[in-house]
Amino acid sequence: MYNTTKPSTARIIELAENTYGSKYIKVKRCEVYATFKRRFPYSILWPLLGVHELDHTDGGGTKGIYHWQQRTFYNAVLDVLAMNLNDMLLERARPYKLQNHIILPEDDGKAVVQIMEAMSDECSKRKIVITGGETSIQNNIKGLDISMTVSGFIRHPKPNQFQAGDLLIGFKSNGLHSNGFTKVREVFGDEFRPEFVEPTRVYLEDILRLEKKYGIHGMMHITGGGFTKIKPLLPGLDAHIYNNHMLSPQPIFHELYKRGVSDEEMYKTFNCGIGFVIGVPEKHAEDALDAIETAHGEADIIGEVTPGTGKVKINSEFSDRTVKY
Amino acid sequence: MYNTTKPSTARIIELAENTYGSKYIKVKRCEVYATFKRRFPYSILWPLLGVHELDHTDGGGTKGIYHWQQRTFYNAVLDVLAMNLNDMLLERARPYKLQNHIILPEDDGKAVVQIMEAMSDECSKRKIVITGGETSIQNNIKGLDISMTVSGFIRHPKPNQFQAGDLLIGFKSNGLHSNGFTKVREVFGDEFRPEFVEPTRVYLEDILRLEKKYGIHGMMHITGGGFTKIKPLLPGLDAHIYNNHMLSPQPIFHELYKRGVSDEEMYKTFNCGIGFVIGVPEKHAEDALDAIETAHGEADIIGEVTPGTGKVKINSEFSDRTVKY
Repeated sequence: MYNTTKPSTARIIELAENTYGSKYIKVKRCEVYATFKRRFPYSILWPLLGVHELDHTDGGGTKGIYHWQQRTFYNAVLDVLAMNLNDMLLERARPYKLQNHIILPEDDGKAVVQIMEAMSDECSKRKIVITGGETSIQNNIKGLDISMTVSGFIRHPKPNQFQAGDLLIGFKSNGLHSNGFTKVREVFGDEFRPEFVEPTRVYLEDILRLEKKYGIHGMMHITGGGFTKIKPLLPGLDAHIYNNHMLSPQPIFHELYKRGVSDEEMYKTFNCGIGFVIGVPEKHAEDALDAIETAHGEADIIGEVTPGTGKVKINSEFSDRTVKY
Repeated sequence: MYNTTKPSTARIIELAENTYGSKYIKVKRCEVYATFKRRFPYSILWPLLGVHELDHTDGGGTKGIYHWQQRTFYNAVLDVLAMNLNDMLLERARPYKLQNHIILPEDDGKAVVQIMEAMSDECSKRKIVITGGETSIQNNIKGLDISMTVSGFIRHPKPNQFQAGDLLIGFKSNGLHSNGFTKVREVFGDEFRPEFVEPTRVYLEDILRLEKKYGIHGMMHITGGGFTKIKPLLPGLDAHIYNNHMLSPQPIFHELYKRGVSDEEMYKTFNCGIGFVIGVPEKHAEDALDAIETAHGEADIIGEVTPGTGKVKINSEFSDRTVKY
């Protein structure tokens, strides 16, 4: 899905919209992007079941350099799967099939098979069917690149917006996840840390269960753009994220900070220990937290939503400053 | 779609098949690949219309180096679109939507917009809806890479096999198209030729029209693997391709030959002037040719199918040799 924080995006969306003349696709306002006045198309599929279909494409980015060097192919697959599934969650989409495109810098049958083994495992357990894909050998790339196009069903489309009085629940990240690697390479140069190849966590199952049981007002996958990504979920609201919770940044984030990345840059580039954020009504927050903790033990209430002007305010974990976006 | 001529393919297919436990996808023998005993999954979509859905992913490969250098973005899009649509033709699939994944070596808003303008134009005129995509900046790649996942409908699935007595009609290529560029770079090194950025021709409209009117027994998109790709279409048959037709190789192919690429390598790496081959009953061949020529004036009868043992025999355009696969 196009990242609406990127330049040229308005024009890209417009150009995609120029193609919406098909009788097979129905274009419906996509409420997640309602604040951007975007429209995204859904197939009119499964008419008897009353379900919409959503397609979504994402890849692993420059983190693939490290996965290729370290041959951490299973983690590379988890990264790309997570980038897709976690993003699709924002529209409450349940994934059911995918296609893949794998670029390797050299012909390496073992690598391809290990990648497909990981994909097959992770898809089988989520009942996602791999309908096909392509492997491309390109000796002009340093590292691997995997991208996936995932399709999912949406049963009950709903707006993705926080409400005044919501408590914010954060889900622990697994470290850097799959964004900010251009910055990581700038800071670390040729140095390697095992944390560079840790996989992104998939939040799908937890979130869909909570959505069904308690209703989630708004949610965001914290990737490129960091915590600035939740600004569109705050019409006439502010989000406050405190630092008195259990989701402390992993050591790798402290190291980035010590090497000169500012507080402000940290929270707009990295997840700083929190991979996914949801806003739930205060009355459900404790129950929701218990339900998650049964599964992971790795979520906590990290803040709250108040009336305001669309600002995100974060008490930094790295200093005594408060970061504002 | 996985190239069945690549190593590890059997294992890749097996791993994909492990995921076929979904109630949303029906796995149907895909007759195109029947000789390989492959099965490919189709969504059970549009049940009221009785249509199958096919997904297909492909990218532009290392040709993207030249497109990036020359900023021939429109041609880059045509290449990737053609690689997908021409391949999907083998299953008589009519495309209706796509997702894209664009990798650029640097953040270049103008390039992204030009790429999307081309995609929007080419998709609009074919009623293909762009349902989304992703742009990724990766400074570890030399050149651009565009990949697309295209979905299409199949109304009447049928086997893709030649029959004894078929005449082979070739469709003129636009030059190198999008394969064999690793070889091209090996031969030409840092030299550049304008032919390196000429786009792949899309055969979709012509082929679907001929299929409807005359019935095509077998067809093949001549890409990586060259003319060896038609071997699976020849159960108990041989294909003979002569050199007394109008589809002569473009000068760039003669130059590759002169620089040391053998006859055998030429026909198994490059299209040598013929981008698509169909086999039609002899009685329809002339009419079919007339119908194509109305559109392009660039197709000709290039050979015939006889009882045999699965061999492809080609009278070389580069020498007086006969190449056999």
